[in-house]
Amino acid sequence: MTYCLGISLDAGQIFMSDTRTNAGIDHVSTFSKMRIFEKPGERIIVLLSTGNLATTQATVTLLEEQIQLSVEDQKTPSLMTVSSLFRAARLVSEAQRSVYRIDAAALKDAGIDGNATFIIGGQIAGERPRLFLIYAAGNFIESGEDTLFFQAGELKYGKPVLDRVVASSTDLLEATKCALVSFDSTMKSNVSVAPPIDLVIIKRDTCRISLRHRILETDPYFLEVRKRWGDGLRAAFASLPAAPWRLG
Amino acid sequence: MTYCLGISLDAGQIFMSDTRTNAGIDHVSTFSKMRIFEKPGERIIVLLSTGNLATTQATVTLLEEQIQLSVEDQKTPSLMTVSSLFRAARLVSEAQRSVYRIDAAALKDAGIDGNATFIIGGQIAGERPRLFLIYAAGNFIESGEDTLFFQAGELKYGKPVLDRVVASSTDLLEATKCALVSFDSTMKSNVSVAPPIDLVIIKRDTCRISLRHRILETDPYFLEVRKRWGDGLRAAFASLPAAPWRLG
Repeated sequence: MTYCLGISLDAGQIFMSDTRTNAGIDHVSTFSKMRIFEKPGERIIVLLSTGNLATTQATVTLLEEQIQLSVEDQKTPSLMTVSSLFRAARLVSEAQRSVYRIDAAALKDAGIDGNATFIIGGQIAGERPRLFLIYAAGNFIESGEDTLFFQAGELKYGKPVLDRVVASSTDLLEATKCALVSFDSTMKSNVSVAPPIDLVIIKRDTCRISLRHRILETDPYFLEVRKRWGDGLRAAFASLPAAPWRLG
Repeated sequence: MTYCLGISLDAGQIFMSDTRTNAGIDHVSTFSKMRIFEKPGERIIVLLSTGNLATTQATVTLLEEQIQLSVEDQKTPSLMTVSSLFRAARLVSEAQRSVYRIDAAALKDAGIDGNATFIIGGQIAGERPRLFLIYAAGNFIESGEDTLFFQAGELKYGKPVLDRVVASSTDLLEATKCALVSFDSTMKSNVSVAPPIDLVIIKRDTCRISLRHRILETDPYFLEVRKRWGDGLRAAFASLPAAPWRLG
């Protein structure tokens, strides 16, 4: 499993992903699920992936080949040349579907789920910042005023705190703190989501990375948030009024 | 969807279930998912069901027919006669499987998921209190020292608070409060889980219901817990230290 999160706010965007992959509980590795495509000032695109690692790696490899090709022939569209994030999402979708076309039958025979889901966001100069969720079937949706974030992978444990805290006017670092709490809740309930956590923050209209950080399990800030959030939850719970019911 | 929860503590057991059922988002009804089989002082059994409503209703009907039959012939085993909760779980499993045998092929043809999952617990005189989770396939597991509660249905949103608060020494009403918070978190993130919430509390070694209560959406205690928990979470979040990172 994996947990990936993209948040789109007035002030910019936040991307966070864990790095745990497993092929069964006895085969656990660390892989970054975040890829960055950047030409500072002109475009910044962040791609988060969850699902079958072979599928996501093959998809990303195809996208990287396109970039190489577009440099050589100056005409192949790629994540580094398309004029909109919508077109970028289309490229990911096409690459993902072409991987399925090659692998789906064999995976089905082997009883393996080859599905992959992607979150893609960022900003290309001339456009506003945009954020898309690309489903396993390759269709995709865009975030909006009422849907400020997309999650992929193991999403439920960490959703309640996001629902309660994140608003479009939320400050970028404040929302990052909330995202960290969301990851902490997820990791507490599902061992297949684990640090290090990759973090990227993009300020609106800069078209470049404002912060890139890998949060290790020993990161002092992460440890403090984890501890204080646990303490805060227990305190919030302790302050609730006692149930008024009498046991017979 | 549904959310059902059974908790087994040193002091006794708590059962909670919502009442929302839906066949598609445009067909929503209220059904209790909690059945109680009680002979006060001798046995108390609580059965919670989630999944396909036709399957769970048919399963329960078979169990009720067994009870009727056991009264008449004095030999058919039923939930009111078996000597252990383990045997009771077996009866549920058998009834569930016999419903599948009749319906599974037709449901598969119609592309409908007929699966049902059950939580069964309580106490039969001569035994300790016991709690079982019966999977859709009819196999089942029992709670223990390290697994104090079972959830079924829409379980993830409401699990973090249980993980953090419930210990085997937790007081029954305190754990009930925690269960209520767990339901609140679930209902906040999934509209297909909704009040009224059915609650039963059983004190250890009484073999009878200690409290039975239907918590309505307008229940003042529920509303206060909901509001104060939301406030408490926001306060806990606000008290977290600011992220130490600088945006470039």
